[in-house]
Amino acid sequence: MENGNSYRHILKWGDKHEEGISHHMAEVIKEKFDLSDADFKGKHLPGTEPVKLEKPSMLKPVQVDFFRSVSGAENIQTDDVSRARFSCGKFYGELLDLRLGLVPDPPDAVVAPRTHEEVKKIISFCSGEGIAVVPAGGLSSVTGAVRAPGGGIALDLTKHLNKVLAVNKVNKTVTVQAGMYGPALEEKLNRQGYSCGHFPQSFEYSTVGGWISARGAGQASTGYGKIEDMLVSVKVVTPAGVIVTRDFPRMAQGWDIFRLFAGAEGTLGVITEATLHVFNYAPENTTSAAFIFRSFEAAVEAMRIIIQAECGKPHLFRISDPDETDIAFRTGGFEGTLADRALQMLGFKTGSRCLMFVTVEGEKDYARFVIRKIKRKARAGKGLYIGTSPVRKWLEQRYSSAYMRDPLMDLGIMTDTLETAVTWENLLKVWKAAHEYVARRSKAFMMIHISHVYENGANLYFTFLSPMEKGNEKNDFTTFHRGLVETILEHGGSISHHHGVGRVLGPWMEGHLGRSSMELLRAVKKHLDPNNIMNPGGTLGL
Amino acid sequence: MENGNSYRHILKWGDKHEEGISHHMAEVIKEKFDLSDADFKGKHLPGTEPVKLEKPSMLKPVQVDFFRSVSGAENIQTDDVSRARFSCGKFYGELLDLRLGLVPDPPDAVVAPRTHEEVKKIISFCSGEGIAVVPAGGLSSVTGAVRAPGGGIALDLTKHLNKVLAVNKVNKTVTVQAGMYGPALEEKLNRQGYSCGHFPQSFEYSTVGGWISARGAGQASTGYGKIEDMLVSVKVVTPAGVIVTRDFPRMAQGWDIFRLFAGAEGTLGVITEATLHVFNYAPENTTSAAFIFRSFEAAVEAMRIIIQAECGKPHLFRISDPDETDIAFRTGGFEGTLADRALQMLGFKTGSRCLMFVTVEGEKDYARFVIRKIKRKARAGKGLYIGTSPVRKWLEQRYSSAYMRDPLMDLGIMTDTLETAVTWENLLKVWKAAHEYVARRSKAFMMIHISHVYENGANLYFTFLSPMEKGNEKNDFTTFHRGLVETILEHGGSISHHHGVGRVLGPWMEGHLGRSSMELLRAVKKHLDPNNIMNPGGTLGL
Repeated sequence: MENGNSYRHILKWGDKHEEGISHHMAEVIKEKFDLSDADFKGKHLPGTEPVKLEKPSMLKPVQVDFFRSVSGAENIQTDDVSRARFSCGKFYGELLDLRLGLVPDPPDAVVAPRTHEEVKKIISFCSGEGIAVVPAGGLSSVTGAVRAPGGGIALDLTKHLNKVLAVNKVNKTVTVQAGMYGPALEEKLNRQGYSCGHFPQSFEYSTVGGWISARGAGQASTGYGKIEDMLVSVKVVTPAGVIVTRDFPRMAQGWDIFRLFAGAEGTLGVITEATLHVFNYAPENTTSAAFIFRSFEAAVEAMRIIIQAECGKPHLFRISDPDETDIAFRTGGFEGTLADRALQMLGFKTGSRCLMFVTVEGEKDYARFVIRKIKRKARAGKGLYIGTSPVRKWLEQRYSSAYMRDPLMDLGIMTDTLETAVTWENLLKVWKAAHEYVARRSKAFMMIHISHVYENGANLYFTFLSPMEKGNEKNDFTTFHRGLVETILEHGGSISHHHGVGRVLGPWMEGHLGRSSMELLRAVKKHLDPNNIMNPGGTLGL
Repeated sequence: MENGNSYRHILKWGDKHEEGISHHMAEVIKEKFDLSDADFKGKHLPGTEPVKLEKPSMLKPVQVDFFRSVSGAENIQTDDVSRARFSCGKFYGELLDLRLGLVPDPPDAVVAPRTHEEVKKIISFCSGEGIAVVPAGGLSSVTGAVRAPGGGIALDLTKHLNKVLAVNKVNKTVTVQAGMYGPALEEKLNRQGYSCGHFPQSFEYSTVGGWISARGAGQASTGYGKIEDMLVSVKVVTPAGVIVTRDFPRMAQGWDIFRLFAGAEGTLGVITEATLHVFNYAPENTTSAAFIFRSFEAAVEAMRIIIQAECGKPHLFRISDPDETDIAFRTGGFEGTLADRALQMLGFKTGSRCLMFVTVEGEKDYARFVIRKIKRKARAGKGLYIGTSPVRKWLEQRYSSAYMRDPLMDLGIMTDTLETAVTWENLLKVWKAAHEYVARRSKAFMMIHISHVYENGANLYFTFLSPMEKGNEKNDFTTFHRGLVETILEHGGSISHHHGVGRVLGPWMEGHLGRSSMELLRAVKKHLDPNNIMNPGGTLGL
């Protein structure tokens, strides 16, 4: 076992015991990548050494003293392990760095403010001194959004600013501090009969402020919306002053200020509080349905028809493409069963068949009515209803795939995800082009799913696996990753649907948005953060 | 009859024959304001004189020549009638000015560009020359958003930039030029099986660009959303360059640029095109229900329960408060009927009873299912179902009340509307305070309705009537209006829910939003319009 001050302790997902790879999954991997049992012994780049930073903290003692005077000495950390922990998120390239014993972008200190007022003092001081500030939530960013390339401080919002301030039962909203983690928020809400409705895969280790800053999407976003759809108002400390917006349901008083902070990724200021819509908590009402389609094209067409029908919406709404469906069937132990053979005979063949999962939430009879409507439409689109248990099983392990990455990397397997938003018109183009791109690499494998669905399009979520090029892990990954990003953009995808942009995707922003739009982003940034202290160094390509 | 070059020709609503006031309405007015039949003869300040401007056009001949060279001589007007027509919208204060023969803010010329490219040339030229530009759609603004206090040009987008560019059946969107009027758009869409879903009271005389610029709301917005909810992307000519956004369903690539133009009221640039969601056109599926409640409080509580229930949403969803309900019953000839007496006996008494109207659209069985759910909840809230015909009748005359204002003003009656967005928590407070404020004026009468409903609140729409103070019409109105705005804001309302801010409500913006937020608006404005040519002179309080 690694110890508490190792690189591995920082890179591993979650604080649970490591589970390793299931028997079924191991078989798939052996086959796909020509591995033998011997390859499963030992760990590639395990990162078990103790953390040791090259860069000393560059803060002046008087600056550290200031932070201590504001937030208390116990809330300022300058040791190597704390600095390394706040030097990165969970982007594959960052995990690789840690495994290689590299910490390229540590902050000089980690400061954990206790109040909104302390955040104000800290931001004002840092703006005057030119000290960079990286607001930090759960550090689950997969886009390099929480690095400190120029040093400065990481602002740990999770230690103190992690409470529900008010549940408003009349307005059906919650006002919550930015550093609160998903499970704590959801538990508080459940006790009052509500749910936050936002369940990203990172739910266990991500915060409200991070959700807003990255414009995250939960697994039931088709029904509940992305976090920006749930956002009612914010309280933000910027170097140019505090911005507090009001909780009006809608308004027509100029353009919306609060929306600028959805997706700002810490570049404009520190969100300290937010008011969000909440939803009725009634899991016993949830209806679900799983379908199988003969092809991805047929499943996508059925999905589009369902979402455009104006007869109530699914909450969870997913399609796994043939490659992901195949993995799901194999790792689920379904492959080769009698039922599988029956499906094959009916034309639902490995390599082209696709799973679709749906849930509908809300009042009991409403959820039942809408799922019936969806079943009818899925059947009309040649989908075969295969019951509810595949959906229930999926829900039970809904956060598990994040835990798979560490053991895969231990095996020397590169694994990362990308995602994009795309109109229905371009969706199949992007899907095909991405698969073709990955197929050009030997021993590479990609699964794609659709998991967030809208009237005019959907997202595509890409998970790729390939053996690392040992000794050249970073360059190999960077080149491969760049090509995939460019393939997505060239065929009509967006830079990101819900992971955000960070520093990893920043270089594509200007070409993608156009110069006038990018300069508008920069003008907003320049106004709110004239000394460029807020999460500087390439975030959003600013 | 007025002639085509009179002030009256400009001030009157719509191009239909004037209809006057119904018998029932005349009776109500006589009673409320102590008028006699004699008062109904003759017209107060009829505005029938020919338009004559004091201010000559201040453009240099070389500037006029430039506009002619770009858009053709036939598309440049500098005559008094054209300038007067584009000098204002339909704000009560503006109509009063016209009736008094005043045109305080005429543009120097009206320019009707034929293409997006011409708009680019015009904006670039005007920015260099410091010529103000007021983008103009249907001129139905009720907030003074289309005036030219410093002269310059009005940009008539309705003459040429008025076409559907593409209906995308796969993405379920329409791309349309900004100067297209509602009925023309709706007709085009209907023919392809779609509806724009946006039916503001000004529908007949307002344009897509105006809807977006003012952040309008249609009568079925509870189901279809406000125009900003339907907006997918925009093409905007700003002095700092053209901004074109993409039609992704959602994204996480920084904050949304396209949303800045929803509510910008022409201060940032000229919207030339927009892509909007469209909806299935199936009016035969619409279900409806009318209810009566014993009190406004009970109706509001039922409305809140329905919208927060998560069992499908109404599309049209309205409550008329007791005063508006009373007028509806009296002008509809219901008062004193047998049915009325029965209602009174059941406790639905004049002065406290309230009407609620609901429609649900979508697939036929869905619309039926949801209206049944709503009926059950309305009944549980002590609402009495009174059939569908009141809703159908209301829909038949849905655009008619705008036509009432001219004959009322002819009678010497001040009549204007205000509206606000407010959380459920503050809604009754604002409603009561507004009524109390109006009650302090002798012979004043106010009706309030709720017509746009959200999970966390709703709008309130105020219509007030009172005899003008003859000879002191403007000051009297301005003082009364200011007091009502301040009453709304003090009790927790927003400046506007869907009329926008314009120059009339601009003075309240900074106090309402706070200085940091207002400076952020100004920074965006400064970047996109450094020479302050876009709709300058107090719009949005910038």
